[in-house]
Amino acid sequence: MRKLSFVLVLFLLNAESLFAQQHPVAFATKKDLTLVKNSLAANSLLNKSYNEIKNAVDQWIGKDIDVPVPKDPAGGYTHEKHKENYNLMFNAGVLYQITGDTKYAVIVKQLFVKYAQLNPTLKNHPEATSTSPGRIFWQALNDANWLVYTGLAFDCIHDFLTVAERKQITDGAFKPIVDYFTKDIKPWFNLIHNHAVWACAGVGIVGVAIDNEDYVNMALYGTEKDGSAGFIAHLNGLFSPDGYYNEGPYYTRYAILPFYFFANAVNNTKPGLGIFKYRNNILQKALNGALQQTNLNGGFYSYNDALKEKTFVSSELVVAIDIAWQVYGPNAAYLPVAKAQGKVILNAGGVGISKALQTEKNVLPFYPYQSIEFADGAKGNKGGVTVMRAGKNEKQTSLIFKYSSHGMAHGHFDKLNINVYDNGNEVLQDYGAARFIGIEQKWGGRYLPETKTYTQQTIAHNTITVDETSHYDGKEAVSELNWPVKLFGSISEKNLQVVASLDNTAYKDVQLQRTIFMVHLPDQLKPLIIDLFKTKSSTAHQFDLPFNYSGSVISTNFKYSPALNSMKTLGNKNGYQFLWKEAEGIVKGPLAQFTFLNEKSFYTISSLVADSAQFFFTRIGANDPNFNLRRDPSYIMRTKSISPTFLNVIELHGNYSTVAELANGAYSSLSAIQLLQDDANYTVGKIIYKNNSVIVMQSNSKFESNQKHVFKNADYNFEWIGPYAIFYNNQIIK
Amino acid sequence: MRKLSFVLVLFLLNAESLFAQQHPVAFATKKDLTLVKNSLAANSLLNKSYNEIKNAVDQWIGKDIDVPVPKDPAGGYTHEKHKENYNLMFNAGVLYQITGDTKYAVIVKQLFVKYAQLNPTLKNHPEATSTSPGRIFWQALNDANWLVYTGLAFDCIHDFLTVAERKQITDGAFKPIVDYFTKDIKPWFNLIHNHAVWACAGVGIVGVAIDNEDYVNMALYGTEKDGSAGFIAHLNGLFSPDGYYNEGPYYTRYAILPFYFFANAVNNTKPGLGIFKYRNNILQKALNGALQQTNLNGGFYSYNDALKEKTFVSSELVVAIDIAWQVYGPNAAYLPVAKAQGKVILNAGGVGISKALQTEKNVLPFYPYQSIEFADGAKGNKGGVTVMRAGKNEKQTSLIFKYSSHGMAHGHFDKLNINVYDNGNEVLQDYGAARFIGIEQKWGGRYLPETKTYTQQTIAHNTITVDETSHYDGKEAVSELNWPVKLFGSISEKNLQVVASLDNTAYKDVQLQRTIFMVHLPDQLKPLIIDLFKTKSSTAHQFDLPFNYSGSVISTNFKYSPALNSMKTLGNKNGYQFLWKEAEGIVKGPLAQFTFLNEKSFYTISSLVADSAQFFFTRIGANDPNFNLRRDPSYIMRTKSISPTFLNVIELHGNYSTVAELANGAYSSLSAIQLLQDDANYTVGKIIYKNNSVIVMQSNSKFESNQKHVFKNADYNFEWIGPYAIFYNNQIIK
Repeated sequence: MRKLSFVLVLFLLNAESLFAQQHPVAFATKKDLTLVKNSLAANSLLNKSYNEIKNAVDQWIGKDIDVPVPKDPAGGYTHEKHKENYNLMFNAGVLYQITGDTKYAVIVKQLFVKYAQLNPTLKNHPEATSTSPGRIFWQALNDANWLVYTGLAFDCIHDFLTVAERKQITDGAFKPIVDYFTKDIKPWFNLIHNHAVWACAGVGIVGVAIDNEDYVNMALYGTEKDGSAGFIAHLNGLFSPDGYYNEGPYYTRYAILPFYFFANAVNNTKPGLGIFKYRNNILQKALNGALQQTNLNGGFYSYNDALKEKTFVSSELVVAIDIAWQVYGPNAAYLPVAKAQGKVILNAGGVGISKALQTEKNVLPFYPYQSIEFADGAKGNKGGVTVMRAGKNEKQTSLIFKYSSHGMAHGHFDKLNINVYDNGNEVLQDYGAARFIGIEQKWGGRYLPETKTYTQQTIAHNTITVDETSHYDGKEAVSELNWPVKLFGSISEKNLQVVASLDNTAYKDVQLQRTIFMVHLPDQLKPLIIDLFKTKSSTAHQFDLPFNYSGSVISTNFKYSPALNSMKTLGNKNGYQFLWKEAEGIVKGPLAQFTFLNEKSFYTISSLVADSAQFFFTRIGANDPNFNLRRDPSYIMRTKSISPTFLNVIELHGNYSTVAELANGAYSSLSAIQLLQDDANYTVGKIIYKNNSVIVMQSNSKFESNQKHVFKNADYNFEWIGPYAIFYNNQIIK
Repeated sequence: MRKLSFVLVLFLLNAESLFAQQHPVAFATKKDLTLVKNSLAANSLLNKSYNEIKNAVDQWIGKDIDVPVPKDPAGGYTHEKHKENYNLMFNAGVLYQITGDTKYAVIVKQLFVKYAQLNPTLKNHPEATSTSPGRIFWQALNDANWLVYTGLAFDCIHDFLTVAERKQITDGAFKPIVDYFTKDIKPWFNLIHNHAVWACAGVGIVGVAIDNEDYVNMALYGTEKDGSAGFIAHLNGLFSPDGYYNEGPYYTRYAILPFYFFANAVNNTKPGLGIFKYRNNILQKALNGALQQTNLNGGFYSYNDALKEKTFVSSELVVAIDIAWQVYGPNAAYLPVAKAQGKVILNAGGVGISKALQTEKNVLPFYPYQSIEFADGAKGNKGGVTVMRAGKNEKQTSLIFKYSSHGMAHGHFDKLNINVYDNGNEVLQDYGAARFIGIEQKWGGRYLPETKTYTQQTIAHNTITVDETSHYDGKEAVSELNWPVKLFGSISEKNLQVVASLDNTAYKDVQLQRTIFMVHLPDQLKPLIIDLFKTKSSTAHQFDLPFNYSGSVISTNFKYSPALNSMKTLGNKNGYQFLWKEAEGIVKGPLAQFTFLNEKSFYTISSLVADSAQFFFTRIGANDPNFNLRRDPSYIMRTKSISPTFLNVIELHGNYSTVAELANGAYSSLSAIQLLQDDANYTVGKIIYKNNSVIVMQSNSKFESNQKHVFKNADYNFEWIGPYAIFYNNQIIK
């Protein structure tokens, strides 16, 4: 069946031959670019964007631009110069089309001629350290970036070039790189992976630009043209049906540009393929899913390898929303994003967005964030990620509960992890990755070794580490084959959002089951987060549950021993070796409380302590000779026992004004936590909050939504339907 | 003479009796408030400010408002409630005047009646720990705040009250506090100190409000009414002739409100005193000087005890600029400040500013910052502070060189300290003070003990500590009696700003002499900071020169030993006990370099190493059991010798875009530093920067501006006029 439908697609494709294609057609069509030209005067953002590009390009007109022999790693001169060159060529190509001024075409041609001389001479880059070495750059990925932009540039000046010039550039500049990709490192080109998305887009766009059907087919269907690799396979394999991108939001950002650029070129040349409608608009879902996974400042949620500084103002997202505007139609949700970006690309979507920002009086203050659930896996059967949200605009609270699959090489060992953002700040953080991107002195701008040795390890996350060993013993290959399951959940009710997930793969002897409740109690401004983390093991283990908080320690309700004149590490492996032990304390039940301040809000983590537990205040920085890691703190609860159940409550409370010198609600309102029942049938917790009782109940065995449950003891007699319920002063929360 | 002129002032004063004074007159006159009322509709900022106040007050109308028996420290309920009450009373009083609605007068009266019952019963506050205990609050200072605001409130409802009610409130609410101040803790009231400014303003404003000439005279001239204390003495004693406030900009902010409020009340009742013209408009100079000492975000320079979160949007500065607008006339420089504040007070100045912001199309992007020098001391003879500036708007660089006197109890042991701000960020920081103001859990919101034990100590600053002992052995009383002298300086030339200062008081055997050059080399975007720090001692000492940098370590040109599995403190006293030793290295000359990244810019500190020197990377956090200090880093150069000369160059270079993944100019351009001469006559340094020679010369003996100097050796023959010069490729920099 699969084979058959593939043949059908190929048939359709062949009906739309590239030969005798008009140019330009890859970045935009002649018609689009005429629209841009005619819209410049009346649309200020478009005009500003145009002038920025023009100013950047004009300074190079008439100059002999260097095309250096590749030598340096990322951040070094030759790396940055080649990057600058491909951007310049792309921008100059577009300017040529808009202005008709041949000086822009000339500058592109001159650079191409130099590359046509250089590229055939290149072997693997001298600084290549990756398994997929580059030629112009240290890694093939950057060569793929080069292909994408120079392909778009060539397409723009296609008609300006003579046939002989086209051949010279095609053979000299493009062919060596395309051959290298599709022959020498074919397995890499045929991967289902973000690098390969770039590679396919590069080869495909070059194919469109030089009218090479073979390149386009390899790009769409892999080097064997059988659909087992290539762009269509990426659309099938890298996204879940919800549009969740396998590597997480930070890498969606990175991959979305080649996805959209190449899809756009395909759409312009082979409209019959309906590429933007493919898999129920999967590219639209991918973009919207990535935007839903951003903080109020546009920063992508920093789980998996991610740099917190990257936001949706990055150029990749400018390209994506501007093309989306053109192909999927106007969407008011994109306007606050475009406003923050402060620029558009010079296509019809850019014209539309610029117009809309000029005429729309009520641009939303933020992207319309909402609670959202993403299933992971191409078939949506590999766990997932849920974002629970509460509150409005700048006061919103977001909790990310991650029970997804590993996410390839940039994944972390973070099963059942949570992160919390509040008021635009990351309050319980994921470290992200350790990297100073583009800074040569810091490991050539690459991922720093501490990304693997610390930031990917379980202890760097807000989830349980057993016996100081990361999930799957830190083995990516094993982690890739396993994932948690979602037991039950609902995010559609305003007052009570819940997700429960079970993992019995991360550890051999230990089952982890976490339920996160985000509940709005009556008359409260902020939600209460109830974190029920059950474990099951046959023998005793050491369980560490960290809260990687961001902020200042305000108080604890227990005594601890601080490190005074000397300080040691928390452990010696699996990330523990990076943590200084700033303080430790032992709490004999029943309640440990820790309050911290993040900017203007207070947060209290209240922990049920069954018998006794150890608590640590740690700080990153040990065994970090090159100062590669931030000195961030963590608060870690440790229990050694068989099958402990953790019941933690996270309160978001109070507000602080340093200007007014006033702190309101700086104290926790929680006075007790206990477990009323905890067995194979039910877990029932009781919380006293502002002298009200909050009873949290879940079934541990029957998860059907229509199942009736009863909890009964000397004090209570509750009945409810479905796998969970919360009663507030004996009234069910709905 | 002094006595005579004082008698004259008293005579003038008595000519303007308070009796039969019209009310209101303290906060504003009837005429002003009518203007406010008539301007509300047409002026949006005024209207917004009015509505904020109205909304805040209206929620209390008709409620029985608590006036609790004082019990809690700052941050606690009774403290915050009394604070809330005095603000409410003031606001309601003003609203009564503007609206004529008696419900606002009633709420003020009702509260006054409660205070009239409470205040006579009060003894020292149970949480009082200061030497000047309060009655309503833990410290008398807060009681003074209460007097200021309730005095203004009483004045507003004066005519609404019956004679009997006035007497009841005067005797019950005010008299106990005023008597307490002017009798029980008279020495405190008669201090020349910001607390006493508040106390005088409070007593004086109450005097104006209740028509009590005696109170006003005590406020103006001290309890003995001889001018040795009181408001006029404050105007004489707390400011230098330049308007430099003895405690520094952070405390100017705090004191400026009672200065302006009381001066305004005096001006309205005794215009003949010309209080705003006093000492050549000293109050205007004070305000402008404070604004000049802010960062681009409005944050006050954080030297002395200061909290970095406090900016010029604080209510004190709203009051000051709005009154200044009224009494000194419109000033475009205040508009960006007012815009950031986003509110005005309901006086004629507030009307004016609101109007101006509405009509002025080109509001400056920032307060018009400039290089500026402040002499310290009432007579301008106690050293000073110079702010050197370069660059425009958001790209500006500011260097603060501090050679002032101690600055009373909130001063630090920081002779010859420098701080650097760049692009709106504090790059070489002063820690400021350790305090979570208003947060009860943190030492009742008071200054934390670590303010004295760490943040005031010399090692916390970017200046030299000798033998691990703070300046003046950390004795405030000794420090108060001494200060450095300025040797020479000029900040009027764009390309070369210089200040040299000598201190021979901080240490018995060691003389410290520092010259800071801020030089603009040809074709450079950013200035180069050359820091020549000479010392003179008869025997060998240990010299530590820290650079409290903010940012991430990028690279060093030397090897060091990092703390890996355990870490110890740098020392055990005078602030050293708080510093973890993250790494240490020994450099055998001639050049040590350290590059760090702060947001989007790189900074390199290049140090001449004469023979060998030790370098430490430290981090705050040791011996801090309550997590009271930030975990900030420092880079410390240590030399043990007789009379070493330190020649450091601070480069501000490059730029980094995480969005574009590009770093430009990430490397230092400095390749060598040497001393060509260093003796009693001259110090001559040579710097190689981008292969250009930069020769820095200063006379060490003759500082006259018309003195001719010659430096001659085998390679050079330079002549120049005045105490210093810089030659760039043999051309003098002008």
